[in-house]
Amino acid sequence: MLISEAGETGLISKIMRLINRMGQKQSPCDSQLIIGMGDDTAAWKQRGGIELATTDMLVEGIHFDLSHISWHDLGWKAIAVNISDVAAMGGRPCYALISLALPAHHRVENVLSMYRGIIEICNLYGVTIAGGNISAADKLSITVAMTGNCEGYPMVRSAAAARDLIAVTGYPGLSAAGLQAASSSIHLSPTARKLFYNAHFHPSPQIEAGEALSALGVKATIDISDGLLIDLGHICEASKKSAVIYAGSIPCHPLLKRYFPHDYLQLALSGGEDYCLLFTADSNTLRKARSRLSLPVNVIGEITSAKTGKVTVLDRQGKEIKMDHRGWDHYRS
Amino acid sequence: MLISEAGETGLISKIMRLINRMGQKQSPCDSQLIIGMGDDTAAWKQRGGIELATTDMLVEGIHFDLSHISWHDLGWKAIAVNISDVAAMGGRPCYALISLALPAHHRVENVLSMYRGIIEICNLYGVTIAGGNISAADKLSITVAMTGNCEGYPMVRSAAAARDLIAVTGYPGLSAAGLQAASSSIHLSPTARKLFYNAHFHPSPQIEAGEALSALGVKATIDISDGLLIDLGHICEASKKSAVIYAGSIPCHPLLKRYFPHDYLQLALSGGEDYCLLFTADSNTLRKARSRLSLPVNVIGEITSAKTGKVTVLDRQGKEIKMDHRGWDHYRS
Repeated sequence: MLISEAGETGLISKIMRLINRMGQKQSPCDSQLIIGMGDDTAAWKQRGGIELATTDMLVEGIHFDLSHISWHDLGWKAIAVNISDVAAMGGRPCYALISLALPAHHRVENVLSMYRGIIEICNLYGVTIAGGNISAADKLSITVAMTGNCEGYPMVRSAAAARDLIAVTGYPGLSAAGLQAASSSIHLSPTARKLFYNAHFHPSPQIEAGEALSALGVKATIDISDGLLIDLGHICEASKKSAVIYAGSIPCHPLLKRYFPHDYLQLALSGGEDYCLLFTADSNTLRKARSRLSLPVNVIGEITSAKTGKVTVLDRQGKEIKMDHRGWDHYRS
Repeated sequence: MLISEAGETGLISKIMRLINRMGQKQSPCDSQLIIGMGDDTAAWKQRGGIELATTDMLVEGIHFDLSHISWHDLGWKAIAVNISDVAAMGGRPCYALISLALPAHHRVENVLSMYRGIIEICNLYGVTIAGGNISAADKLSITVAMTGNCEGYPMVRSAAAARDLIAVTGYPGLSAAGLQAASSSIHLSPTARKLFYNAHFHPSPQIEAGEALSALGVKATIDISDGLLIDLGHICEASKKSAVIYAGSIPCHPLLKRYFPHDYLQLALSGGEDYCLLFTADSNTLRKARSRLSLPVNVIGEITSAKTGKVTVLDRQGKEIKMDHRGWDHYRS
């Protein structure tokens, strides 16, 4: 069935039925929700503590290509990138509002498949779909707005201190490897294929790591979406500091090195869409983080006092490496 | 300067500087805001009562045509349509998150002009811009997510009761007149031009009316975005009731009748994007609403007990008028 056949109202009612059928009861926020989909706004009771809100969009031809990503994974990822923002603040996600710009020629089944991906990750992370909006468009895009709650004061970009160590959770670069693998004919082992594919198309935002870092007193964090160097630059600029990182300390997954022997460092430093957490802390806090988190935590450099916001990459001999491509900016090639 | 010249980071920092310069201090929410633009999420303190959240998008070629609307008014309208959703629930708007899908060939000045429109209406209605997101795209679109607060229980679509009277605030049809006037060569008086133009391109959401209706105990409300008949249909479907309305009772502005002598009823019933409030109430509550609201409040019909969700339009002789085009649905022509 085409969307043009179902009509807007028909499509929405199908989505609502699907949500009802698949259930939204896992979330502790649900008991606070008094009005969900189907009214002009969603409404929920306020609670003590701090509420977080974020929005992120995925646009066809810019962030994704429907010949590479499945509709299911597209729905999953549109939610995941927002949860990752909440993770970077040390919060727990709560409600999502989902705006779809949806060409009429797509199939209803595909939209429902996308919503399945959405509902699966929402249920996994305790997110309640509180509302949304659908519009016609020439190209597909998904914009999600998400709220969250935070126990303590949120971790921010602007709190890095000189002499802080810089660390990253997990393995950056795997997502870019997944994108390259999808759009080329590179032959991968099943394990490598799954690792790279999931990193790019089915990412797992690091909510537990974010909460643990916040509980340990980490102050400055960002999630890696634009690329490690660009995102570390965001921390440095917001904190009015600079950073030195050591190429030899960047955690590069063995399979990334095996399949991208020439590019692995470039992918790890500039690939983007990793949804790892990048943070700064003193050595004592970092030691605790390494023992507390289930993810690998690797120190990659340190914050310096220069106010220029510069990020310098040094090789094993202490010589600066000039990077040609530092990461993702929508309007620069 | 082109966006491609400024880069994403440059553009965002220009917008942030503009917001800082034009000020965001009018809002009572501001004192609750602890993290605004520039971090992965915005964060604010929660308060007692009920929080509302909504999202709405304007897509180029679907909702607007840049040869008709100015960038300034486009920014205004993108916020206005979300405030109107909050108004329909009887709430006050609070925070906005703004996602722009923005082709690289547009001018930075135009984007800033759009943001001026955004900031103006935000300041007027006490909305704090809490964050957002910019992405490249082939066509322009603006998606806004907005939260609000509500004193009592929100007004909803599902609370219409049999024998309730149906009423509308203000004059539906003026927005469609504005769109027709912009895309045709119809000659208008300056007064009519301003009336129609503002209704379509620079609408004023009815927050005070919504709050007053809520305080009077009105239970069922919707804002007219898709068109009076379609939106009344939404109330009937959600309430499992039906409605009869009287064509002779529809408030048609004298200038609408003068310039659209053949179409004025069609425009008022099906035009859409009016952002008037449509509500149902008993006669006693309605009498109070007419004296309390500064906007005109007109009774246009009544809710009936049939569960079919049907909306019937009767002429002065009590004969049913069949409408060819009932209003706006993205996927039906």
